[in-house]
Amino acid sequence: MVQNKSVIFLASPTEYPVPGEHFAVETRELNAELKENDVLVRNLYLSLDPYMRGRMRDSHVKSYVPSYPIGQPVSGGGVSEVTESKNPAFPIGSIVTGMVGWEEYTLVSGGQGLRVIPNARDSKIPLSAYIGVLGMPGMTAYSSLKIIGQPKAGETIFISAAAGAVGQLVGQMAKKLGLRVIGSVGSDDKLDFLLKELKFDAAFNYKKGSILDNLKAAAPQGIDIYYENVGGEQLEAALDVLNIHGRIVACGMISQYNTPNPYGVKNLMNIVGKRITMRGFIVSDFAEQCGADFAKDVGTWLVKGEIVYKEDIAVGLDNAPDAFVGMLQGKNFGKQVVKVADL
Amino acid sequence: MVQNKSVIFLASPTEYPVPGEHFAVETRELNAELKENDVLVRNLYLSLDPYMRGRMRDSHVKSYVPSYPIGQPVSGGGVSEVTESKNPAFPIGSIVTGMVGWEEYTLVSGGQGLRVIPNARDSKIPLSAYIGVLGMPGMTAYSSLKIIGQPKAGETIFISAAAGAVGQLVGQMAKKLGLRVIGSVGSDDKLDFLLKELKFDAAFNYKKGSILDNLKAAAPQGIDIYYENVGGEQLEAALDVLNIHGRIVACGMISQYNTPNPYGVKNLMNIVGKRITMRGFIVSDFAEQCGADFAKDVGTWLVKGEIVYKEDIAVGLDNAPDAFVGMLQGKNFGKQVVKVADL
Ligand SMILES: NC(=O)c1ccc[n+]([C@@H]2O[C@H](COP(=O)([O-])OP(=O)(O)OC[C@H]3O[C@@H](n4cnc5c(N)ncnc54)[C@H](OP(=O)(O)O)[C@@H]3O)[C@@H](O)[C@H]2O)c1
Ligand SMILES: NC(=O)c1ccc[n+]([C@@H]2O[C@H](COP(=O)([O-])OP(=O)(O)OC[C@H]3O[C@@H](n4cnc5c(N)ncnc54)[C@H](OP(=O)(O)O)[C@@H]3O)[C@@H](O)[C@H]2O)c1
Repeated sequence: MVQNKSVIFLASPTEYPVPGEHFAVETRELNAELKENDVLVRNLYLSLDPYMRGRMRDSHVKSYVPSYPIGQPVSGGGVSEVTESKNPAFPIGSIVTGMVGWEEYTLVSGGQGLRVIPNARDSKIPLSAYIGVLGMPGMTAYSSLKIIGQPKAGETIFISAAAGAVGQLVGQMAKKLGLRVIGSVGSDDKLDFLLKELKFDAAFNYKKGSILDNLKAAAPQGIDIYYENVGGEQLEAALDVLNIHGRIVACGMISQYNTPNPYGVKNLMNIVGKRITMRGFIVSDFAEQCGADFAKDVGTWLVKGEIVYKEDIAVGLDNAPDAFVGMLQGKNFGKQVVKVADL
Repeated sequence: MVQNKSVIFLASPTEYPVPGEHFAVETRELNAELKENDVLVRNLYLSLDPYMRGRMRDSHVKSYVPSYPIGQPVSGGGVSEVTESKNPAFPIGSIVTGMVGWEEYTLVSGGQGLRVIPNARDSKIPLSAYIGVLGMPGMTAYSSLKIIGQPKAGETIFISAAAGAVGQLVGQMAKKLGLRVIGSVGSDDKLDFLLKELKFDAAFNYKKGSILDNLKAAAPQGIDIYYENVGGEQLEAALDVLNIHGRIVACGMISQYNTPNPYGVKNLMNIVGKRITMRGFIVSDFAEQCGADFAKDVGTWLVKGEIVYKEDIAVGLDNAPDAFVGMLQGKNFGKQVVKVADL
């Protein structure tokens, strides 16, 4: 019997998840009996994303994604190699992306949700990009900035969590489109990255000084778009500084995910007086409308070196729980992935 | 010299305005020297609207409408008779609507913003309607429900301040369009009015019991549109109960206008997970897009008796300050106007 190291979901946290208490590494036996259309994959890279924190909830709380079943591996996006297959669409040896467990091997029933990465073995693009800039976080940035943000040259955008998986692409796209780009981050290293590598026009560390004062200083003409990754105090500051007909791209509110005491936003009346539109979305909403353009545009920019994309790669499944908690706490510098195995 | 009784703005309140302290009745001499295109009107009805509270602010605070100058009459929408005119568009004796002072006579420089009500003297429609259901509040309800609410038959809408100037038309329009209509109000009289006269499907008094529990009970299938007049706790409850792809028509947040301690809304993450769109507006934004349809549709409904419209008429300028404060406190039952003089 093959052994399969996995990260198992144990219990719902109310604050930050604690490795060993809410999820833990365990080795189980692999039961790999493939039925018609099933595919067995060997996982190479796993994507660690904030929304997974939302899946670590009590199963009776409804949400747009199902909660993780207790006692089963945590799951999410990954890049994997097909090692056994009863599905002609996914021959042995092909490299795929899709939803897999945090484990060495995943049996993907019916091959559901898998997508072959063409020419993956010869590509200059690193495989991890397919769960980053060319994957879900990239698509999130690209589609929502376009569709909800409605960016126009000369406007100003403010992006929170601006050095992260989503934020760094939003900022670079906005620069390409001729916007003035402002970002907030939680460390001075990330600040340097925004200003020096990504060429943001202004940026600040939200842990130093007043967020509102920092934002006002960075945006003397106000902002036209707030790309919302964080929520709470940063949203409140953005509402104060937004211009008439401003847009809020409501992508996420990570400051609210790990606390039982959510922040109360007190100045929503700005939405009326300044005719602001705040719109939430889930990346899959835009797949049809934007998927093809996304792959083409971002693929081209990447290959031409017109954008950069920073990844933070933890090595080994054993490190996945800590890397996940670290990402929630801002210890990641760029898109957080876990490298499970070499190709 | 003609004497002109007026309501003068004296000082900015931080909570509810106090008659005598923040605004007061005073009689001044009328200086009616008309220049080319000027019009002198005798005011018949004045519209008392929540946004005027926002104009009673310190002049250095920016907003979408200018602050009232201290020592000048409070101003707002009115219905008036032209008594002197150097403007061929507004002959003596014509009945007009426009922005006037809270005073017996207003000199309208250049006739700016005035509009003649055709056949006003013979109309079956009461003159006060032109500052209510056929005026700004009616246009507010009509345009924003259509454009932002995007109502579809079979959906459910929840309206706060549902018996008010805006709310009562929103509710009746939504019924016409085949929606399930839920309203909240601050008294049991208003509750009866919603259920018995306006035929709402459900309603509750937000002062009795938990707002969230009341809303959940009234909307077992959730709501698709929240027509937001109130803000604070009602917005929070609506966010919890909204369905996927729900819309919030951000018309106003009156619960926040008269307090230095705004309510903090803690569950905005619902906007992301449920892909909610919350959009603010000012009625004038929609004039071009909706003005003609509004006048035609609402005029027809009114004449045919397909909608009702409750007004609360205070008599005499002396009673305007109390009526204004009463409206902010929910003492009005229907659209609050002041009758200044008979035609
Ligand atoms: N709607 C969708 O479909 C969709 C899809 C993908 C992602 N998202 C959302 O997009 C946001 C960013 O996701 P991502 O994948 O790009 O993650 P990420 O930015 O790479 O990583 C999360 C970052 O959030 C910041 N953060 C954590 N706690 C914070 C706090 N209390 N206050 C301020 N910042 C905090 C940290 O950066 P600092 O060091 O700067 O604090 C951390 O690095 C998240 O809210 C996520 O839920 C939504
Ligand atoms: N965006 C725009 O262009 C525009 C245009 C017009 C109006 N508005 C807004 O629309 C809303 C309704 O205006 P309206 O003219 O129709 O006024 P209204 O409803 O006729 O009168 C105001 C009503 O608000 C309710 N209210 C007052 N304080 C409250 C509180 N703390 N909590 C809950 N309800 C409270 C009271 O009703 P209860 O007895 O039910 O408490 C009161 O009767 C206001 O927010 C106004 O600012 C916006």
